[in-house]
Amino acid sequence: MSSERVTGTTLGAKIMSAEGAADFIQSGDTIGMSGFTGSGYPKAVPLALAAQIEAAHSAGNSFRVRVWTGASTGPELDGALAKANGIEFRLPYNSDPIAREQINRGEMEYFDMHLSQVAPMAWQGFLGPLDVAVVEVSGIRSDGSLIPSSSVGNNKTWLDRASKVILEVNRWQSQALEGMHDIYYGTALPPDRVPIPITRPDDRIGQPCFRCDPDKIVAVVETDAPDRNAPFKPADETARAIASHLVDFFEREVSNGRLPRSLLPIQSGVGNIANAVLTGLADAPFDPMTAYTEVIQDGMLSLLESGRLRMASATAFSLSPEAAVEMNRRMDFFRDKILLRPQEISNHPEVIRRLGCLAMNGMIEADIYGNVNSTHVMGSRIQNGIGGSGDFARNAYISVFMSPSTAKSGAISTIVPHASHVDHITQDVQVIVTEHGLADLRGLSPKQRAEAIIANCAHPDYRPALMDYFRRARQHSYGQQTPTLLDEALSWHRRFVETGSMR
Amino acid sequence: MSSERVTGTTLGAKIMSAEGAADFIQSGDTIGMSGFTGSGYPKAVPLALAAQIEAAHSAGNSFRVRVWTGASTGPELDGALAKANGIEFRLPYNSDPIAREQINRGEMEYFDMHLSQVAPMAWQGFLGPLDVAVVEVSGIRSDGSLIPSSSVGNNKTWLDRASKVILEVNRWQSQALEGMHDIYYGTALPPDRVPIPITRPDDRIGQPCFRCDPDKIVAVVETDAPDRNAPFKPADETARAIASHLVDFFEREVSNGRLPRSLLPIQSGVGNIANAVLTGLADAPFDPMTAYTEVIQDGMLSLLESGRLRMASATAFSLSPEAAVEMNRRMDFFRDKILLRPQEISNHPEVIRRLGCLAMNGMIEADIYGNVNSTHVMGSRIQNGIGGSGDFARNAYISVFMSPSTAKSGAISTIVPHASHVDHITQDVQVIVTEHGLADLRGLSPKQRAEAIIANCAHPDYRPALMDYFRRARQHSYGQQTPTLLDEALSWHRRFVETGSMR
Repeated sequence: MSSERVTGTTLGAKIMSAEGAADFIQSGDTIGMSGFTGSGYPKAVPLALAAQIEAAHSAGNSFRVRVWTGASTGPELDGALAKANGIEFRLPYNSDPIAREQINRGEMEYFDMHLSQVAPMAWQGFLGPLDVAVVEVSGIRSDGSLIPSSSVGNNKTWLDRASKVILEVNRWQSQALEGMHDIYYGTALPPDRVPIPITRPDDRIGQPCFRCDPDKIVAVVETDAPDRNAPFKPADETARAIASHLVDFFEREVSNGRLPRSLLPIQSGVGNIANAVLTGLADAPFDPMTAYTEVIQDGMLSLLESGRLRMASATAFSLSPEAAVEMNRRMDFFRDKILLRPQEISNHPEVIRRLGCLAMNGMIEADIYGNVNSTHVMGSRIQNGIGGSGDFARNAYISVFMSPSTAKSGAISTIVPHASHVDHITQDVQVIVTEHGLADLRGLSPKQRAEAIIANCAHPDYRPALMDYFRRARQHSYGQQTPTLLDEALSWHRRFVETGSMR
Repeated sequence: MSSERVTGTTLGAKIMSAEGAADFIQSGDTIGMSGFTGSGYPKAVPLALAAQIEAAHSAGNSFRVRVWTGASTGPELDGALAKANGIEFRLPYNSDPIAREQINRGEMEYFDMHLSQVAPMAWQGFLGPLDVAVVEVSGIRSDGSLIPSSSVGNNKTWLDRASKVILEVNRWQSQALEGMHDIYYGTALPPDRVPIPITRPDDRIGQPCFRCDPDKIVAVVETDAPDRNAPFKPADETARAIASHLVDFFEREVSNGRLPRSLLPIQSGVGNIANAVLTGLADAPFDPMTAYTEVIQDGMLSLLESGRLRMASATAFSLSPEAAVEMNRRMDFFRDKILLRPQEISNHPEVIRRLGCLAMNGMIEADIYGNVNSTHVMGSRIQNGIGGSGDFARNAYISVFMSPSTAKSGAISTIVPHASHVDHITQDVQVIVTEHGLADLRGLSPKQRAEAIIANCAHPDYRPALMDYFRRARQHSYGQQTPTLLDEALSWHRRFVETGSMR
């Protein structure tokens, strides 16, 4: 067999069905899968593996695997394998609803990691060996090098570390992706680490393709399947208000001489609010901006098209189906403006601090002192994971967290007396924004932060109760650096769990 | 006037009394003081300032200042100014008991910062202008450059940023310090930041002296006063047990091929346990080690003398009086083995991650999931501050936190159901050690971490209650990623505050 995307190599001989490829995977194996934010994940082999796992379970045999990825994948991977009860252990990030439920029922072990640390820790050795890599590529070149697809993630590391490699060549991915990637092969374990030579977001430091020992490649599977591209959600009024407060803040920083007119490289999450912020930036007088971030979403393509954004560095796409079509149509325009890197580089603390990124991340809740919970609903139920927020927040020039001031139709206040779980400590949270306003926490003591957060960010319905808590904590707390009433600190969360509302 | 340590410069004309120098400081000023871990802080001007503040208060006038330092100082600075009720705002770290009490009574605003971020944030501008720098040096050279004393801290930044500079020339400091420092002038604000060119702990990248615009120097004060050198506390049995578990762990990592035989650069805090660990390392088969750390304490000098430690990079000394004498006596031996850098470099995340430091820090408490509280007793009362622990823990090759398993004669358990304050999130805590054992948490899910911490680290008296909490949380928690009983999570701390014991 051969194919236009597997040209002139001996690998044509290894083209086989997904079922045949999945036969190379054994129960107990650790599998490094491609995939980041629903793009570039393998779409056929995990489904075939899930079927084999279900068959084994039906026959009364145990069959579970350990799954490592870049970040979130799609229903054909996490969803199918979780549904088959096939994932024993998962790292570093998950947003699949079926897998999430299994984790929160205590049926799947989940190691929630800083995304920058996955590749180095895989090399460090304590995670154990990597048995199989299953990596989607958009093509194989005649010299055997692999053209990455719509995400880079940890693929370089999986291809280097795995004993066996299974490739999915997805002809749905645009061939025009070739040349957009920058795969850096200069990382090492200490004492052999050297500076990452990036001083501008557009610095190219690597090569456009992955290398892979052909003897390790046991199977090549051809696919023609779309990424899990989520539909674009237009910004609602709340998201637009959050964006507006944030853009105003950046404008003040520029006019006070604390930020350059072109800002500093922006990092932005995905979703409704992030897209609203990007739209807000399109109408603001910042020119020309750059992005050093994890993910290219719809709003960033629009910013690039308008010329306000000069270029964007990321590790993956996360586009709506329409935006994906538009990007492929205008690839000649986009190709030299977008750079996809391994996530150990897109999220590298060294580079983020050097560039001075403006980090903008969502959150589940913040307490009145500015501790941020990004991961655990009511302190115990995982939502997705910390992802890259810790990489960016601690090293950003300005670290912003944003959210609507309430959730569940007002039953949950985003601002609480005491965070039920902490992902970002007060030192790493410089600005909090809700639709009601923005709290600039830089240089403030905890008590000063509490006053700013309650006054500017809390929903008016919850503000009196927060002020009352803070006032009584200032009277009765054991210490007054961070006044806390130990018997009430988590009472809002307890009330929600018991009654369905924090009110 | 002139002096042997203020040679051949026009600065001799500015030699004056501490009282005269303190006259340059006004109420409301922000003052950048030298000083890190009780070394290299100004000893005369702050005392004179405190006297002037007390006089103003007696006359019914308000007089308070904002104080920035490297880290902790001594009783002649924080103690005297706090006693005079003269500090309105303090950053980035404090260990003075009088200042601590004022903070915990809510009478002083305290901005507790990552030590690596102080200098860059001072440049960023949101902290406001720096009116006066008061910096101890060990001499002034004929070209006007300043020979640093026993700590570097943020002095470079204070000298660059302040409108007025007051120098204390302390002849108590050894003249042999000259040449030991490495002052790097290559930092910048983004977008002009470049890689910090350190790839080995002993790389010299700067110059031995500070530069300072002589027109800004308003006063030179001569002193002859010792640093706050604390007496050496010999290791007790608990500290030796902690050290022994940790050294065993490192030996296993070496024999498993996960650490080189010379280890990786060690970072170690100060105190009883840290010294016990250094003593333990002296008897272990690691050779030759290096240190990339904040502080050179007694145990590190011994390691250098034995030859097991090849060199140490830090930002300050923290020696017992006897060790200080010994170091001065053998300065020819030590001079090329010790390197003092600005704290923005000694604690730079970029360098720490590149070198792959083995971070060993103390803690107040850890919860069963491995969230670590380094700063707030019972969640609200500040002990000292986060210091450099966040810089090192998040970027270390292996991040270790250690403590005796109980405090206050057993009334407090160091391992608790839920940390009352979080400084280090589970992702940044890889190993926890108490005298009872070591929990290697790398690659574990929260529930697996809980089992390891309770079994290996908790005091046997508290272990059944922790196991009972964890068991019930596994039954009743809202979610099962990090099982939590919201009504009990902080009950141990509440019990301590109410009854004086967690039992």
